[in-house]
Amino acid sequence: MNKQALRNKLYVIIFGADTPSGKAFDVALFMAILLSVGLTMLQSVPAIRAAYGPWVSGLNAAFTVLFTIEYLLRLYCSNKPLKYARSFFGVVDLMAVLPFYLGLFIDNAEFLDVIKVLRMLRIFRVLKMAQYVGEADILMNSLMASRRKIGIFLVTVLTLVIIVGTLMYAIEGEEHGFNSIPQSVYWAIITVTTVGYGDMAPETPLGQTLAAFLMIIAYSIIAVPTGIITAEVGLSTAMKRRGKTCPSCKRGPHDTDATHCKFCGGAL
Amino acid sequence: MNKQALRNKLYVIIFGADTPSGKAFDVALFMAILLSVGLTMLQSVPAIRAAYGPWVSGLNAAFTVLFTIEYLLRLYCSNKPLKYARSFFGVVDLMAVLPFYLGLFIDNAEFLDVIKVLRMLRIFRVLKMAQYVGEADILMNSLMASRRKIGIFLVTVLTLVIIVGTLMYAIEGEEHGFNSIPQSVYWAIITVTTVGYGDMAPETPLGQTLAAFLMIIAYSIIAVPTGIITAEVGLSTAMKRRGKTCPSCKRGPHDTDATHCKFCGGAL
Amino acid sequence: MNKQALRNKLYVIIFGADTPSGKAFDVALFMAILLSVGLTMLQSVPAIRAAYGPWVSGLNAAFTVLFTIEYLLRLYCSNKPLKYARSFFGVVDLMAVLPFYLGLFIDNAEFLDVIKVLRMLRIFRVLKMAQYVGEADILMNSLMASRRKIGIFLVTVLTLVIIVGTLMYAIEGEEHGFNSIPQSVYWAIITVTTVGYGDMAPETPLGQTLAAFLMIIAYSIIAVPTGIITAEVGLSTAMKRRGKTCPSCKRGPHDTDATHCKFCGGAL
Amino acid sequence: MNKQALRNKLYVIIFGADTPSGKAFDVALFMAILLSVGLTMLQSVPAIRAAYGPWVSGLNAAFTVLFTIEYLLRLYCSNKPLKYARSFFGVVDLMAVLPFYLGLFIDNAEFLDVIKVLRMLRIFRVLKMAQYVGEADILMNSLMASRRKIGIFLVTVLTLVIIVGTLMYAIEGEEHGFNSIPQSVYWAIITVTTVGYGDMAPETPLGQTLAAFLMIIAYSIIAVPTGIITAEVGLSTAMKRRGKTCPSCKRGPHDTDATHCKFCGGAL
Repeated sequence: MNKQALRNKLYVIIFGADTPSGKAFDVALFMAILLSVGLTMLQSVPAIRAAYGPWVSGLNAAFTVLFTIEYLLRLYCSNKPLKYARSFFGVVDLMAVLPFYLGLFIDNAEFLDVIKVLRMLRIFRVLKMAQYVGEADILMNSLMASRRKIGIFLVTVLTLVIIVGTLMYAIEGEEHGFNSIPQSVYWAIITVTTVGYGDMAPETPLGQTLAAFLMIIAYSIIAVPTGIITAEVGLSTAMKRRGKTCPSCKRGPHDTDATHCKFCGGAL
Repeated sequence: MNKQALRNKLYVIIFGADTPSGKAFDVALFMAILLSVGLTMLQSVPAIRAAYGPWVSGLNAAFTVLFTIEYLLRLYCSNKPLKYARSFFGVVDLMAVLPFYLGLFIDNAEFLDVIKVLRMLRIFRVLKMAQYVGEADILMNSLMASRRKIGIFLVTVLTLVIIVGTLMYAIEGEEHGFNSIPQSVYWAIITVTTVGYGDMAPETPLGQTLAAFLMIIAYSIIAVPTGIITAEVGLSTAMKRRGKTCPSCKRGPHDTDATHCKFCGGAL
Repeated sequence: MNKQALRNKLYVIIFGADTPSGKAFDVALFMAILLSVGLTMLQSVPAIRAAYGPWVSGLNAAFTVLFTIEYLLRLYCSNKPLKYARSFFGVVDLMAVLPFYLGLFIDNAEFLDVIKVLRMLRIFRVLKMAQYVGEADILMNSLMASRRKIGIFLVTVLTLVIIVGTLMYAIEGEEHGFNSIPQSVYWAIITVTTVGYGDMAPETPLGQTLAAFLMIIAYSIIAVPTGIITAEVGLSTAMKRRGKTCPSCKRGPHDTDATHCKFCGGAL
Repeated sequence: MNKQALRNKLYVIIFGADTPSGKAFDVALFMAILLSVGLTMLQSVPAIRAAYGPWVSGLNAAFTVLFTIEYLLRLYCSNKPLKYARSFFGVVDLMAVLPFYLGLFIDNAEFLDVIKVLRMLRIFRVLKMAQYVGEADILMNSLMASRRKIGIFLVTVLTLVIIVGTLMYAIEGEEHGFNSIPQSVYWAIITVTTVGYGDMAPETPLGQTLAAFLMIIAYSIIAVPTGIITAEVGLSTAMKRRGKTCPSCKRGPHDTDATHCKFCGGAL
């Protein structure tokens, strides 16, 4: 019984976000994640590795030990440890510590760095905290409601960059750096998204004219996804704000700060 | 009679999207289009052509034969083959196979690649599938309703880039790479759309000041097409959502707070 | 009297856009403006000047003679020629022809090109045509209603680029190409507007960190002008679409296609 | 008493914006701030320092003396000088003059320039003028209402650039300029915000493919903050426009179709 009580208490602290200790744990976890990701990033800088190498390695090991303890505690206090271990955050939690232990045997630091940095995804666990849930819901619902419109938009953009990229390959050719169709399509994506590195750029008048058209089109169509998501977010926000119905005359929607029906004057 | 029944069955599979076999055909076609466009793109990469040339050519030929059969079946099962052959998708379907057969006689690979890649447009045939039609309609209607506003916007942008480009040609001149007015206008388009390759950039203080003004103006006016399309998409989406229909005259949509039909005055 | 009738008829054709001949004149003028601006642009390309110089010059002279005749006719058929000559379009019309005659005496081609290209502004005269007036009004009204919000936004952006530019000058200094504060502010404008030529870029870790912050901030605040203008355009479009009030119960707004009040059911 | 009257009069002129002299003072201050910031910027240009050095220094000293007098007057005419001195604008006002006097003893011009330029923040004092307050309020309220959504968005973008940057470091490595994870993340930020300097760019096919995916994702998600802020600004503007106030309880705003106050139920 005592053991079960401990597990319940741990569960409330580690998985919950409603008690003061649960909130404190979330904030500490948030900091630990940011610090350990920052350390992994700094460790890759030659100058810092040379000067503070052992310190950074030591701190990184300390954080990993902490995260390992946390992972084991999560397994211990869940009622269904296997369900947790298989969940999205369960896998991310495991991947946050595994590369360190693998790194003791394997010697491919860069590849392990990528997995280590995936622990950044744990940040989103914290966003489950109460005050963000409603907001995150609006964003997710808006994106879900827009997914088909955005799908159509992306297919249109993909078709555009493939056709324009192929045309550009035929016009500019290898002597101006457009070595193949995939590379020309890469250039078209750089242009259509307005990133514009300038590592490839058309040099013939015809290629520059086509590029100018592509830019103008891109400039106009970037408004489309914005319009789609704005409309959804706007409607969701407006609905969340309003949406009460009058109990006497059944009319609505009323604003969230309304206490009387705006149609019949009855109390809400 | 039996022949006519076969044609009808083929028509439902090839042109329709409501039956299971019609949907399966659409999905298979979608995959085949993406794969064949991908192959055409890969074929232009020298390294891949050197290593897998015959394989890629063979697969490409196989896809083309498949598309040829599909084209002939479409002609066979349409009631008005000529009408189909002259329609937008009929022409695109033909252009998806013709370059291959022309390529057996002609030797201008790059030009034929451009036509081959146009088969990407066939993707949009798949977007006619049921669940996308409503969404695509909202997008098309919003663009159509905004076409004059976007036209005015594009004429304004065109006037801006022509005037600023000419000014820049007079200020920077050929010694800083602004060799002619069309090229300066090309630079102005690169700047106004925020692509910014950096292949041309002003070097005199006066030119840089003018460029800074152009960027600030562009930064403000990019909001205009977004605003136009957002407003239209938002109104269309909101209208579709409201969507109540009158029980007496069957017309709609009506606002959520409406109690009487706005067309016939009957109670909702 | 006959002379006055001729002037009136000319006035309707040249200044009006409601009669068939008035519309035809507007379309012809639209084409002539685009062609003459195109010619001025092409004339600056060395290769074209070398090959077709006399032809281009001749066509340019022909267009200028046409525009001169048009200007004189506009003066002739206006009831208040002086008012026309002093109006915005009157000045633009004069500037469309004057540089040609000045160019016969003066030899500063590039400066005159700038003035010649200003004739592009005449395009907006055509936008006064009936079907565009309402749309242009919505855009202008939205921009006017947003002018103070956009003013505040631009002052904020200006303050941001001046402070960040000065910081960057102190951090990067002349050895990395940030030669003076104005040039650093120019870099900050290139960055904040996401143009990103790459002719100047921070090279110290501190400078790159500051640049990354500036980009993230810019990425978030670009939404502000868009939001402002979208809200205005959306409201204007929605209002234009709706805005009828019920004559019996005085409630509204009703949709433009409504024939009965949605509150009391009375005819509108 | 006379002294108190003088202080009150000064207070109305210097701190207020409602009287003609108060407005005139604000406009003069606005000009003086812009001019003195412009002078500080010009002073850093070697050519101008060489040609007009003493003039620019003299003017700068004159402005600083003016700002010193203004600061002392503000201290003198406030009823609670200490409260003013500790307020945000009190600190900014002090920092606008201090660097000049420090510069007489210290010799680190660039660092002092940064502080001098902070006086640009004083511009926002002028934005407290009556006609801008309502507009600035809408913008601030919209940003405040959106702060959690924008926070979630920024955390998502941060996670994205850290994971993609680390992947890119593993893929491209030091031989293509991706020297460390922080620098790769810097590249990812440049790409995701569509700035695209081009000082670093992927060169391997795998790296370019990943970059293309990042750009397409960025292109779609830039719509999210725009949508959030647009929805808020739109709702705020629409609410301000609706803006009816209840005659009995004086509260508002009420919708245009409301007939009863939503707070007290009284008829509107």
